[in-house]
Amino acid sequence: MKRTVTHLADGRELIYFDEADSTVRDPADQRDLPPPPDASEIRYDPVLEEWVAVAAHRQARTHLPPSAECPLCPSTPGFATEIPATDYDVVVFENRFPSFSHRIGVPTALPLPGQVEIRPGGGRCEVVCFTSDHDAAFASLTPQRVRTVVEAWADRTVELSTLPAVEQVFCFENRGEEIGVTLRHPHGQIYAYPFRTPRTGRMLASARRHAERHHGANLFADLLAAERTAEVRMVVTTEHWTAFVPAAARWPFEIHLYPNRHVPDIPALTSAERDAFGPVYLEVLRRLDGVYGVPMPYIAAWHQAPVRAGRDLAYLHLQLFSARRAPGKLKYLAGSEAGMGVFINDIRPEDAARMLREVQL
Amino acid sequence: MKRTVTHLADGRELIYFDEADSTVRDPADQRDLPPPPDASEIRYDPVLEEWVAVAAHRQARTHLPPSAECPLCPSTPGFATEIPATDYDVVVFENRFPSFSHRIGVPTALPLPGQVEIRPGGGRCEVVCFTSDHDAAFASLTPQRVRTVVEAWADRTVELSTLPAVEQVFCFENRGEEIGVTLRHPHGQIYAYPFRTPRTGRMLASARRHAERHHGANLFADLLAAERTAEVRMVVTTEHWTAFVPAAARWPFEIHLYPNRHVPDIPALTSAERDAFGPVYLEVLRRLDGVYGVPMPYIAAWHQAPVRAGRDLAYLHLQLFSARRAPGKLKYLAGSEAGMGVFINDIRPEDAARMLREVQL
Repeated sequence: MKRTVTHLADGRELIYFDEADSTVRDPADQRDLPPPPDASEIRYDPVLEEWVAVAAHRQARTHLPPSAECPLCPSTPGFATEIPATDYDVVVFENRFPSFSHRIGVPTALPLPGQVEIRPGGGRCEVVCFTSDHDAAFASLTPQRVRTVVEAWADRTVELSTLPAVEQVFCFENRGEEIGVTLRHPHGQIYAYPFRTPRTGRMLASARRHAERHHGANLFADLLAAERTAEVRMVVTTEHWTAFVPAAARWPFEIHLYPNRHVPDIPALTSAERDAFGPVYLEVLRRLDGVYGVPMPYIAAWHQAPVRAGRDLAYLHLQLFSARRAPGKLKYLAGSEAGMGVFINDIRPEDAARMLREVQL
Repeated sequence: MKRTVTHLADGRELIYFDEADSTVRDPADQRDLPPPPDASEIRYDPVLEEWVAVAAHRQARTHLPPSAECPLCPSTPGFATEIPATDYDVVVFENRFPSFSHRIGVPTALPLPGQVEIRPGGGRCEVVCFTSDHDAAFASLTPQRVRTVVEAWADRTVELSTLPAVEQVFCFENRGEEIGVTLRHPHGQIYAYPFRTPRTGRMLASARRHAERHHGANLFADLLAAERTAEVRMVVTTEHWTAFVPAAARWPFEIHLYPNRHVPDIPALTSAERDAFGPVYLEVLRRLDGVYGVPMPYIAAWHQAPVRAGRDLAYLHLQLFSARRAPGKLKYLAGSEAGMGVFINDIRPEDAARMLREVQL
């Protein structure tokens, strides 16, 4: 694999991850682009004790453009996109409309309650294009291409973790217009947050309490072992990876995919574990699309250890979940979920696992 | 106001709240209904240390029926609905497809990880019809009708709090098909949870820490006072109520409406405060609909003190929020929000408050 670092016309970084070592990346971005926006603000909510990002410039972001104007396709003589090359394998670049950025502007002076701290939203947001094929999907990638994507995730996790502002690196994919995806081209994103995220903070606090109660045992390893024994919520098991529906799943279809070996993050995966990820994840995605015979909207969220704290307690896993509860019906986060944080799941986890297992591939 | 308790054909309770004391409620429910479903299960997620409800029977719930078959309209000679009467003011009844219920069935024996506790989803779920007019909206109610709704909320909060299983009573309204509402008739819901909700737990923990650091001061009262001083995020202020956009709002349009006097819940409001709620809330709702000149999807969530613990720390308020960030565009909870709990708000709270204030009513 060959890694080539370049820059776009407005100074944003773009990195090619090419499967052929002979690939040469020459074309420069010829567009006349305005400078990237300043970083967002982050504000500390004293009621839930969490940071919230305010990124007004994102209102202008590209929204469901026609295929011929897709900014994630390779450039053509007639249309310059975010990627100057005429083809690519996997490419990563700084988001043009970032929620977090190292480009810190002049802070605004606002009358705020004393409990509400305000800071620049440092960090970085990147886009990961999985393929140059506009009409593909992650589920249709080859295992070799998934391997290249894993290398890109590992590379970005290592590099973004070195930025002083960054406390956590989050690789994810949103798929499907039903959940708000604004670009159809198969792509993921990476958020390098300037704080540890609320969910990760709660997960690590649970893991700490579990370790204290159980002679240092790891919460996630114990849950993984218990699910392997219980069997009823298993989806796919292989030598290196295990996919199951958690016993207290929040979403109609929610699958957690763990490496069988306890590691904190993607860079810690061995070459054999990285090789084995593509086949198991592709099977899980195809089972998910097979449940109702229609492509499922989903969020795929990599839970990695934060950069500095809690690295021994964390256990890398991919949380894949879909809001589709039936053909033509979605699970919405309404009053109970969005107002009170209480999830009502309409599908029993054991039934969801069985439906996924019974899909004929 | 006259309160009449009746029962539907399957044994569920239905309560009329009539504005005329002379109203007589005779008609009985003549339908041939199956018995109500057993309670859901609640399962304890050891990773986030929260209860999740699993309510598979809700998959069968009524989904966007045609107007002529609306189950929340008054009954007609040709079509029997959930409400046997030919007209009503405000009516409350047990949800036919409840997430929580006192009808406890036989528990299922499942192989679960040792950390995942399972219990019957005790408690109760009710539907609150605000008006018999199918085409109305909360924003089009009269102040008198809103007063009747407040009485119904207060009545239900008191009564449901006496049920042994119930730890918290949550009155809310989901409005708009964009956020998953399955019945168009103007209605709200009440969830009487068998546990303290995660959001309330976190809010009370914050309030406790604030009180410890500030000589017993109340977090919410301090935030309310600070917002009144700051002014820039104010929406409406009256003698008894204050509506503002919080400084760290998570949603494009999010308004918190507090009584100026510190009370734990709706039953604690005085008659004058109850009278004053309708005019201020109706103004807020009309400003919200006025921002883009289209009816806004929203969730209106009453934050009340739990039944038993933390009652001194809680401060009643209504959290009203909309996912609409522009005409034709919604804010979705995607990877950052749903995966990591980090909200990215595309509209600055100060701008949202200004837009709401500038609406010509």
